[in-house]
Amino acid sequence: MATFTHLVRFLAKDGHIYYGDAILPSGVTDISQVTRAKVIQGDIFGQHRVTEKIADVRMLLAPLARKDIGTVRCLGLNYEQHAKESNLPIPKYPVLFFKPVTSIAGPTDDIPVAQIAQECEGLDYECELVIVIGKEAKDVSESKALDYVLGYAVGNDVSHREWQIKRGGGQWGLGKGFDGWAPFGPGIVSSKVISDPNALQISTTLNGKTVQSSSTKDMIFGVAETIAFLSQGTTLLPGDMIFTGTPQGVGMGRKPALWLKDGDRVTVSLEGVGSCVNRVVYDKPSPKL
Amino acid sequence: MATFTHLVRFLAKDGHIYYGDAILPSGVTDISQVTRAKVIQGDIFGQHRVTEKIADVRMLLAPLARKDIGTVRCLGLNYEQHAKESNLPIPKYPVLFFKPVTSIAGPTDDIPVAQIAQECEGLDYECELVIVIGKEAKDVSESKALDYVLGYAVGNDVSHREWQIKRGGGQWGLGKGFDGWAPFGPGIVSSKVISDPNALQISTTLNGKTVQSSSTKDMIFGVAETIAFLSQGTTLLPGDMIFTGTPQGVGMGRKPALWLKDGDRVTVSLEGVGSCVNRVVYDKPSPKL
Repeated sequence: MATFTHLVRFLAKDGHIYYGDAILPSGVTDISQVTRAKVIQGDIFGQHRVTEKIADVRMLLAPLARKDIGTVRCLGLNYEQHAKESNLPIPKYPVLFFKPVTSIAGPTDDIPVAQIAQECEGLDYECELVIVIGKEAKDVSESKALDYVLGYAVGNDVSHREWQIKRGGGQWGLGKGFDGWAPFGPGIVSSKVISDPNALQISTTLNGKTVQSSSTKDMIFGVAETIAFLSQGTTLLPGDMIFTGTPQGVGMGRKPALWLKDGDRVTVSLEGVGSCVNRVVYDKPSPKL
Repeated sequence: MATFTHLVRFLAKDGHIYYGDAILPSGVTDISQVTRAKVIQGDIFGQHRVTEKIADVRMLLAPLARKDIGTVRCLGLNYEQHAKESNLPIPKYPVLFFKPVTSIAGPTDDIPVAQIAQECEGLDYECELVIVIGKEAKDVSESKALDYVLGYAVGNDVSHREWQIKRGGGQWGLGKGFDGWAPFGPGIVSSKVISDPNALQISTTLNGKTVQSSSTKDMIFGVAETIAFLSQGTTLLPGDMIFTGTPQGVGMGRKPALWLKDGDRVTVSLEGVGSCVNRVVYDKPSPKL
């Protein structure tokens, strides 16, 4: 389907924003190190081509433009060890919730913390493997499910535990859905390159210190099983994203709890994909419009 | 902002699909009765005009095209009497969940029931006032919130209680998010016409018998309060929709429970807007792709 291997979207030194296929030096797999990319023309989900035009990368952006992003789905409690640290039973079916498109941000964007999320404690990180759907999928079998994947990225399902769990009436979307609370990237690695997404190292560092470190092997519902399950009676569209849950080590699971603070630097990393490095920035009070 | 009063999207007798401003006979307020409309040209959220070209309506479609729909938000437990029938406390904050854009359907479309939702009992109706956001809203005050509304419609937040509540790990999105499970319409009535959305009769009939009948007065969080709350730290975009919760009378709240069956005809109605009439159609088993 896709003609690229490492899809990036970036502000180029020439001042334009492009989709591109990252040119990585031999031995480098972290897309965040990219300095040059071959410009892609056309619709990344349809007719497109990787051109011979090379552009210099000034800054990586969210790998999908907002107009190209569909529905953002997320799984909860999808790692065995994380379910245990949350004192919750292993789910029998995937636990699905959603984030709005406005939560999506780029691999180096700040994570803005609005007033509502400063009122009470509970700001937390969650490194996750992100699936990007490449073509329409409905009622697909597990054995065919990976054919519908454009590629994989790493994301941070930023969560405010007080709003997510206590003040949200049990529904998680509000406390996970603020603007910029789903940075992802640094690019999207084609499913041609990552043939087994269920065996990748995944981790988070907080101000340089490792706080989550696991493998996607620990996922309860693997990538193909997740897509097959979610496509039952539901059409997944090109540009839909699935955040597939986080491993153990979140701030909520620690004693004492470890909450993100203003100025913290959070890095989420996935083997074969690279890292997103985002800084936590508390919004200043602003008069309501 | 909008130049229309009763926005419809329709298949015309000339074979084209148009946005239009419904031409309603004097005294008629139910948009589903429309037979002719003035064609609208341009971007309904931006530059557009109601032309003098009149088209004959063959069939009303979902009032927004998929490309014009943003994030679909829904409130749970937002009517006092419904919270009581659900044996749940009155929420302190709005309870937010999401539906995918693929759940949106038109005012006369069938409600398809996939195999996964036929496995167990629990198919239910929920009539709801639907807010359509007309312009970008972030951190807006309650007193200004209605300025950001394009208009109002009625919708059916179709829900499968077993998947929503028991098998969904407590998260409601899966059991409410199947394809076509959010029919809405029959059109969008401008907020210039409906100045007080918190005093409208709202009802559901099932095969002609009234099963829900209430007023949006019973809403715990009114329209302006809901928009102001949800816009905190979160940008609401043009085309975002908010289903504002359902009154008492749902099938789950009855003794014995009243579940929708194959072939049932469900009508949801809102004063000043009109009705959506949708038939429940069980999908036949199909081999997985």
